[in-house]
Amino acid sequence: MSNLSAVPEVALPPQGVVPCCSPLTSAELSTLDAERLANLFKALSDPVRLRLLSRVASHPAGEACVCDIADVGVSQPTVSHHLKKLREAGLLTSQRRRTWVYYRIDPSVLAALASLLNSSARS
Amino acid sequence: MSNLSAVPEVALPPQGVVPCCSPLTSAELSTLDAERLANLFKALSDPVRLRLLSRVASHPAGEACVCDIADVGVSQPTVSHHLKKLREAGLLTSQRRRTWVYYRIDPSVLAALASLLNSSARS
Repeated sequence: MSNLSAVPEVALPPQGVVPCCSPLTSAELSTLDAERLANLFKALSDPVRLRLLSRVASHPAGEACVCDIADVGVSQPTVSHHLKKLREAGLLTSQRRRTWVYYRIDPSVLAALASLLNSSARS
Repeated sequence: MSNLSAVPEVALPPQGVVPCCSPLTSAELSTLDAERLANLFKALSDPVRLRLLSRVASHPAGEACVCDIADVGVSQPTVSHHLKKLREAGLLTSQRRRTWVYYRIDPSVLAALASLLNSSARS
């Protein structure tokens, strides 16, 4: 029996959802941009997902094994569900190595959101 | 009959929810901080709310009358509902003047969220 049966996550390619946009203070959002950004913020709107994301983002190597971050007080299937949501939103990328999946943040997506919210950038 | 009966919004005081936190890349979020931040991101997770917020934030005076921003393709009660959510989250403040309510973003809340997501701040 293969060890792969114990792998808690299936690595999926990120969807490449890098948001637009000018800072909120400089330009009005289009309907399309607002819909794309709302999906990203929805991925961030769960406390367990935020904790998982912060655990990956703050891990010393900038990368974390699911085995290092999953202790957030919910079941393993729930952790897997939330990690999948973060991957699908493009906030995390994943790579399988042997029996574990390793996660990284996508800095470009977080930086784009930070730029959007940076109200000091008023033009 | 008072003009006040036509006021589409009731001004509520903001809840003063200014988020914590260190950048995601520098420290793991606590459970409490994650819950507070998830509420803010939830307020941003709707495309109509994002469009309303961007209309207020990008308005020339940094302030917008509800009469100037409400044309987002949904009914006036729906606009009112979304503006209330943004106020309750602390993302907008409001002030009634005569028959209209005027909205401002709270720059401190947006700046705190931007700082949280700024992955270039890795320590």
